Amino acid sequence: MLDICLLGTGGMMPTPNRFLTAMLARLNGRLLLIDCGEGTQVTMKLLGWGFKTIDVICFTHFHADHISGLPGMLLTIGNAGRTEPLTLIGPPGLQYIVEGLKRIAPELPFSLKYIELKQQNTIEISGFHISYILVEHMVRCYAYRIDVPRKGKFDLKRAEQLNIPKTIWSKLQKEGIAYYNDKEYTADMVMGKPRKGISVIYCTDSRPIDSLITFSKYADLLICEGMYGEEEKKQKAIEKKHMIFSEAARLAKQANVSRLWLTHFSPALLEPELYLQNAKQIFEQTELGEERKVISLYFTE
Amino acid sequence: MLDICLLGTGGMMPTPNRFLTAMLARLNGRLLLIDCGEGTQVTMKLLGWGFKTIDVICFTHFHADHISGLPGMLLTIGNAGRTEPLTLIGPPGLQYIVEGLKRIAPELPFSLKYIELKQQNTIEISGFHISYILVEHMVRCYAYRIDVPRKGKFDLKRAEQLNIPKTIWSKLQKEGIAYYNDKEYTADMVMGKPRKGISVIYCTDSRPIDSLITFSKYADLLICEGMYGEEEKKQKAIEKKHMIFSEAARLAKQANVSRLWLTHFSPALLEPELYLQNAKQIFEQTELGEERKVISLYFTE
Repeated sequence: MLDICLLGTGGMMPTPNRFLTAMLARLNGRLLLIDCGEGTQVTMKLLGWGFKTIDVICFTHFHADHISGLPGMLLTIGNAGRTEPLTLIGPPGLQYIVEGLKRIAPELPFSLKYIELKQQNTIEISGFHISYILVEHMVRCYAYRIDVPRKGKFDLKRAEQLNIPKTIWSKLQKEGIAYYNDKEYTADMVMGKPRKGISVIYCTDSRPIDSLITFSKYADLLICEGMYGEEEKKQKAIEKKHMIFSEAARLAKQANVSRLWLTHFSPALLEPELYLQNAKQIFEQTELGEERKVISLYFTE
Repeated sequence: MLDICLLGTGGMMPTPNRFLTAMLARLNGRLLLIDCGEGTQVTMKLLGWGFKTIDVICFTHFHADHISGLPGMLLTIGNAGRTEPLTLIGPPGLQYIVEGLKRIAPELPFSLKYIELKQQNTIEISGFHISYILVEHMVRCYAYRIDVPRKGKFDLKRAEQLNIPKTIWSKLQKEGIAYYNDKEYTADMVMGKPRKGISVIYCTDSRPIDSLITFSKYADLLICEGMYGEEEKKQKAIEKKHMIFSEAARLAKQANVSRLWLTHFSPALLEPELYLQNAKQIFEQTELGEERKVISLYFTE
C-alpha cells in the first residue's frame, strides 16, 4: 500500500486558505516529500505522519513557492530526532540553492546527500522508485513519477516440480537468490513476470507537453497543476508556462491514468469548483485537490 | 498615532495554531516590520495592512524562526508593486544571510539596502526612529526600540512678541527654519521642549539583562518574549537564553513601561493563560500576545 497526501493546493504564494502545493508519499512507514514551500511543515504537522522518517525530498524547481520552507523543515526534522542522512533531489544547482538557504540552519543532526538531475535515470530510496522528466516551465523544472513495483507471482507448482526446498521459498521471493546444500536457486526459476505496481505522477509547474503523456501512462494517480480554471486564461497559461484545467484533463485522458487531482491554484482562483466541469467533461475521473487530501493506493490484479 | 500589530506569538517553529513572533508598526501609512519567520506573510495578509509600503525590516537575530519567511516576503512585496528601495537592518552578517536566502528570489523589482548593526546609533526611516541594544541569547541578538518623537509646543504668544510673520509659522514648526524678507527665523525662538513621544520595545530572544531596563524605560508598550510560563522552567530558560513570564514582568516593572505583551511561546506551552498570573502578580499591566493583536498608540500630554 502506498499512501499519498496532497499537502497543499496553492501556487505562487501561501495564502490564509491554502498551503503551497506539495506531495507526501508513505510506504512502509518511510516518507518521500516532493516540494517544500513556506508552510509545508505546518500542513504536515496537521496531517500527523511525522517528520523523522522523511528519507528523501524532491524538488521540481527552485521557484520560492516550491522550496522556501526547506530551512524550517530541515530544523523540524532534526528536532524530531533524525540522525540518518537525508537525500535531496532536484535540478542542477540544487546544492548551491540549499547551501544558501542553510545559512539560517547551519547545524543539523543529520547529513544531506544531494542528487542533481541530469540524464534519465531511476533512483531507488526506501522502496520508492523515483523517475523524472524535464518539463516546460519558465525555469528548469521536472515532473516526478513514484513507482512501487510488484514482483511476479511465485509459481508454487513449478517450485514443487523443481524440488526447491520449502525452507528457502521465502528467501527466494524476497532476495531473488537462495542456496540449499550448496545448490543455487534463482528467482527466474519460480517467479512469474512482474505485475502492475503502483504509480503516481506529480507534475507542477509545466505546460502540457507530449512527453508527459508517455511519462504518465497508466498511472494510478496524476497530481497535476491547474493554475487557472477558466478556458479564456489559456493564453495567459501559455505565457506563464502553466496549464488550465482542461489541458490537465486532456493530458490525463491521453495518458490513460486512473484519476487526476488538480492543484497549484492561482491565488486569484478563489473558487476552483466553478471550473471543475471544464476538466470533467474531458476526463471524468478529475477531482479538485484539497488541503491534505489523502488516498491509499493498493496493488490490483 | 502609531499602530502596532503582533503578527504571531510562536517561538521555535510555526505550528497550526500560532504564527511565528513578528511585529508590524504603521505610521502615516508606512510600515516597519521586525522579524519575518515562516508564515509571516500569511498573517500579514489576514491583517490587511498591505505589503507595498514596508520600508524597513529589522531582524533580531538569524535563527530560522525569525527570518525564514524573508524570501517569500520579498517576492510578495514585489508582487504588491513596490519599486522603492527597501532597508534591511540586522546583526553583522545580515547581507551574507540574506544573499543566501535570495538565491530563491533572485529577481526583485526593488533594491535592498543593508544596515548591519554595530555601535549604538539611531536610524530614522519613514518617521520611525529605530534604536537597538545587544541582548543575551545563544547567538548575537538585538532588541529594538521604535520611537515616534514629538516636538515641543509652538509658543504663540512668543511668536507674536517676536513679530514673526504668521505666513511662516507653519514652515517654522515643520522644518525648524524659515525666512521672511531675508530674515532668518529658527525653531528655538518659538518651540517649547520636545514632548513625550511614543515608544515601543520589541525584545525576543533574550535573558532579562539589566541593560534592557534602561533601554525600555517608560515605553508605552513592551513586547517581550515569554518562552515558558512555568516558574519551574527558569533553569531551562537560563540554559536556552530565554525568559519565563515572571522575568519579563519584572523587567516591565523595573522599566516602568505602560504595558507588557508576552509572546514567543514555546510550542510545548499550549495554554499560556494558565501562567499569566505569574506575570500579573508582578506587573499588573501584562497581557498575553495573540495572533494579530493590535493597539493604536497616541501622543499623551
